[in-house]
Amino acid sequence: MLKITILAVGKIKNENFKKAFEEYLKRLSPYASLKVDELDPEPFYDNSDKEKIKEKEGKKIAKYLEKFKQSKIFILDEKGKEFNSTNFSEFLFKNELDEIVFVIAGTLGFSEEIFGYKNVIKISLSQMTFPHEFARVILAEQIYRAIAINKNKSYHY
Amino acid sequence: MLKITILAVGKIKNENFKKAFEEYLKRLSPYASLKVDELDPEPFYDNSDKEKIKEKEGKKIAKYLEKFKQSKIFILDEKGKEFNSTNFSEFLFKNELDEIVFVIAGTLGFSEEIFGYKNVIKISLSQMTFPHEFARVILAEQIYRAIAINKNKSYHY
Repeated sequence: MLKITILAVGKIKNENFKKAFEEYLKRLSPYASLKVDELDPEPFYDNSDKEKIKEKEGKKIAKYLEKFKQSKIFILDEKGKEFNSTNFSEFLFKNELDEIVFVIAGTLGFSEEIFGYKNVIKISLSQMTFPHEFARVILAEQIYRAIAINKNKSYHY
Repeated sequence: MLKITILAVGKIKNENFKKAFEEYLKRLSPYASLKVDELDPEPFYDNSDKEKIKEKEGKKIAKYLEKFKQSKIFILDEKGKEFNSTNFSEFLFKNELDEIVFVIAGTLGFSEEIFGYKNVIKISLSQMTFPHEFARVILAEQIYRAIAINKNKSYHY
């Protein structure tokens, strides 16, 4: 069974988004072994040095990703490669991967360091900026949709 | 105050999306006079002639839009023009419109007819296909974000 890990910085605080995300995880469970890991965000204030905080969070992410050297890692970034849902499904399944990792940054985004990794691919859900909690729901929905397309399963929505 | 109308085919059935949508409407209320109108979708079954149903829904939409001949009408469509959130804000506010109408189709999408209207512009939230209930939440969030950007208001998310 396909293993999917979603690594996120921070928790989903908004109850509605949290429930919507959990609903998609449940719908995904027969088709993929899905794990969600949340890293603690660095606290920051209006006058904080945000670049420094991003860097710190980046180091945490890098450390977490060490064990995934053999996997494809998809980083969610507005400036990443865009897909329509059918292409996204083909893209996820064409290489018959055993394991896929998605990474969603916190409020401040990613530090540059991570984009240098060889197995990292930047993907974009939209050119628009979404709240990071919201991006998680969209990602779960698109993974579910990608699997439905791949299995030729009808998906009423 | 800017008047915004969101016309949608069908209701939001999912409780989480419904609540999230209502939350954004509430956050928008100090900045825009926002109205949501929902048209009844045509019932359809697996063996229904979906083109015919889309056409029927299209006629309902067209009838509703008759009173907006002087307004800009933005139709949400995956193949429409994409924006990042800053450009979307500029695009909405550059003409100092009094009234903006957004239209979200139902499950089946739009009939071709509507795209022929002179005051209709196709816009896209993403190349990806989202559930139409979800598209409504994203739209409300992006309108809120567009206003925050326009007012130079900090928006913590």
